[in-house]
Amino acid sequence: LNLHLPEHENSFLQALARVPVKVKKRVPLVHHITNYVVANDSANAMLAVGALPVMAISGKEVEEMVSHAQALVINLGTPSEDLMASAVMAGKSANAHSLPVVLDPVGAGATQYRTKNALRILREVKIGVLRANPGEVGSLLGYRSPMRGVEAERTHTDSAALAVQASRSFGCTVAITGQTDYVSDGHKLSILYNGHHMLTRVTGTGCLASSLCAAFAAVETDLLVASTAALGFLGVVAERAALKGKGPGSFRTALFDVMYSLGGVELVTSLRLEVKKV
Amino acid sequence: LNLHLPEHENSFLQALARVPVKVKKRVPLVHHITNYVVANDSANAMLAVGALPVMAISGKEVEEMVSHAQALVINLGTPSEDLMASAVMAGKSANAHSLPVVLDPVGAGATQYRTKNALRILREVKIGVLRANPGEVGSLLGYRSPMRGVEAERTHTDSAALAVQASRSFGCTVAITGQTDYVSDGHKLSILYNGHHMLTRVTGTGCLASSLCAAFAAVETDLLVASTAALGFLGVVAERAALKGKGPGSFRTALFDVMYSLGGVELVTSLRLEVKKV
Amino acid sequence: LNLHLPEHENSFLQALARVPVKVKKRVPLVHHITNYVVANDSANAMLAVGALPVMAISGKEVEEMVSHAQALVINLGTPSEDLMASAVMAGKSANAHSLPVVLDPVGAGATQYRTKNALRILREVKIGVLRANPGEVGSLLGYRSPMRGVEAERTHTDSAALAVQASRSFGCTVAITGQTDYVSDGHKLSILYNGHHMLTRVTGTGCLASSLCAAFAAVETDLLVASTAALGFLGVVAERAALKGKGPGSFRTALFDVMYSLGGVELVTSLRLEVKKV
Repeated sequence: LNLHLPEHENSFLQALARVPVKVKKRVPLVHHITNYVVANDSANAMLAVGALPVMAISGKEVEEMVSHAQALVINLGTPSEDLMASAVMAGKSANAHSLPVVLDPVGAGATQYRTKNALRILREVKIGVLRANPGEVGSLLGYRSPMRGVEAERTHTDSAALAVQASRSFGCTVAITGQTDYVSDGHKLSILYNGHHMLTRVTGTGCLASSLCAAFAAVETDLLVASTAALGFLGVVAERAALKGKGPGSFRTALFDVMYSLGGVELVTSLRLEVKKV
Repeated sequence: LNLHLPEHENSFLQALARVPVKVKKRVPLVHHITNYVVANDSANAMLAVGALPVMAISGKEVEEMVSHAQALVINLGTPSEDLMASAVMAGKSANAHSLPVVLDPVGAGATQYRTKNALRILREVKIGVLRANPGEVGSLLGYRSPMRGVEAERTHTDSAALAVQASRSFGCTVAITGQTDYVSDGHKLSILYNGHHMLTRVTGTGCLASSLCAAFAAVETDLLVASTAALGFLGVVAERAALKGKGPGSFRTALFDVMYSLGGVELVTSLRLEVKKV
Repeated sequence: LNLHLPEHENSFLQALARVPVKVKKRVPLVHHITNYVVANDSANAMLAVGALPVMAISGKEVEEMVSHAQALVINLGTPSEDLMASAVMAGKSANAHSLPVVLDPVGAGATQYRTKNALRILREVKIGVLRANPGEVGSLLGYRSPMRGVEAERTHTDSAALAVQASRSFGCTVAITGQTDYVSDGHKLSILYNGHHMLTRVTGTGCLASSLCAAFAAVETDLLVASTAALGFLGVVAERAALKGKGPGSFRTALFDVMYSLGGVELVTSLRLEVKKV
């Protein structure tokens, strides 16, 4: 095991390994309030790992649909007034049913509307996991984080510190993706070195990370474990897909093939992970 | 020919074989009122089999656009008030122009809104083919059909009886997909054993079945023939795609490759089909 | 070099070769107001060539988002009143920031609503490049151009003359795609013989052409050069993808792989191009 972990933390690894297995066994229904650009890929990712997606967005049905689900993703990739109203309704319904809610504040910082929308969700809905890039998290914390559209600038940011600060400020687990991924629940910090640069050449891979966090949180109540497993999973999947793909088209195809086949043991034996108390 | 059919029913087979050939020859325009999750795949399926897709949804143009089409799909996968209004307008326009209309009541039974929407379409628009899974059809008939989001529970249901009953209740051809597919027009029942479990790992394959029903109904007035050919076509395509794919990503890619190349004779020689009078 | 160009026009070729290189270097942000059918492919095309996509459509943020961008695409594939309002706002914001705007009037001529919407954009927004098929351009010029949904009929049209006339009427560069592509700015006419019939079997390849025009116009102020490079790029990409693909599914996957790898020199050495003064 290529893991920078003390012996006694093997229980953490075992917990990580069990998550994808539990998804396949329990087949959680993951409700998505998401954007129209990546909805198809998000749904296919859910099916690939053994979960079930549902994408209802009308205020006429989101509460009822959420009541059947085991987790909720609120992805603000193409926000509108209607979608925001549905997102709040869905979030409150998820809270009422004690479902984990993952927030993906796509492009927070790029426009005031996006920042405001994300902060509104954080205020009105109890979020379990905030999954974002460093620029988005920085924006939500009030920093001037340079964004280019929905992509964070590749400037240096101390993402580890951001993850810890945000987890304490917002009272939730924070999963920051980038070249290195950071997950913190305010008590521990996971640092994940898996991944592949080709993930930046396929649209919506951040959204896939958020959907995986939700599917994994549906079966694992420790959200640090669930989110670490989800980001690690996508990182390992990307590394393997990159061996098969000859460019972003075939890489993307391979992502779904590998998501389907990657097991829990394979996952943890491929992880390059550090876990620290913070 | 691996078909459980009496000799004199070879005319049925020949009719099935002619359908994909006629699609390629006539290039029917298939109007879609559909959801944003699978719209891209549905359009690509139409192009792969030689039809032309169009996806207009605004009330400002659906009537005029439908007047140019040879078939209409109404897919209720992501319903909203605006989409419902457009769906009814498009349906009435299709009826006025005597075009076949295929209804896909995605998730009927999962929320009251979806059940109500589907029943509204069945009431206000003359439907040619209702394409759904057993849970959705059961819900529309007033049964308590357990649904998980937009997926039917894998509980036992007598889908053959459901298809016949629904075809008589709604006065249309009913095409129920599942591990085995059932198509009935109230007089005959087709039972199709083709297909592959990987279809359940790609989102929107039910929607593809509905779009194929519409493309095939555009060129074949006997809707039992058209729908049997469409579901059989997707089943055979899936079996061949599964030989090429190594997971849901490459399986999905192969689906479109095989749809493009599968001919009418290849289709019927690969069908595992029974046809009964009912 | 297989080019029908006088020696002294090698500067034109060199300009073409530089365009994809400059995209990779400058990573332009390309704002899309586009349809939900092809948004995912358009975003992936941008990432494949080294640009960044953003797809905001709410009137609450389009002006601010456009202010961060280097180019704008207005694609009218699934028009609605809200989308039209956002398109006009985005277009005016792009004009105020002197960004190139590409208009894709999908299905102009198919319905009066589409024709009217496209003419409204041409009237209220300064368009840099109009990218369309011959039927759409003809409709905007007031000709009765037979359309089938969003596809032009394959009737004979003198696309070269259409391109020149439209560029003068609308005061912009006009890029007409079809079996042969034509680009004119009213002074010159590029005729491009690259491409592959499989492009007609994948939905949204016209939309991809428009997005490429925008990404290329973001880094090249001569819009005849930018648009000729964009259409030539897609044509050469399609020819190479067709060698890899076994049908529309794998062809589409290969499109993104080749977009990612095709360089400027490879582009111009594969072009089959004529450039004329008009």
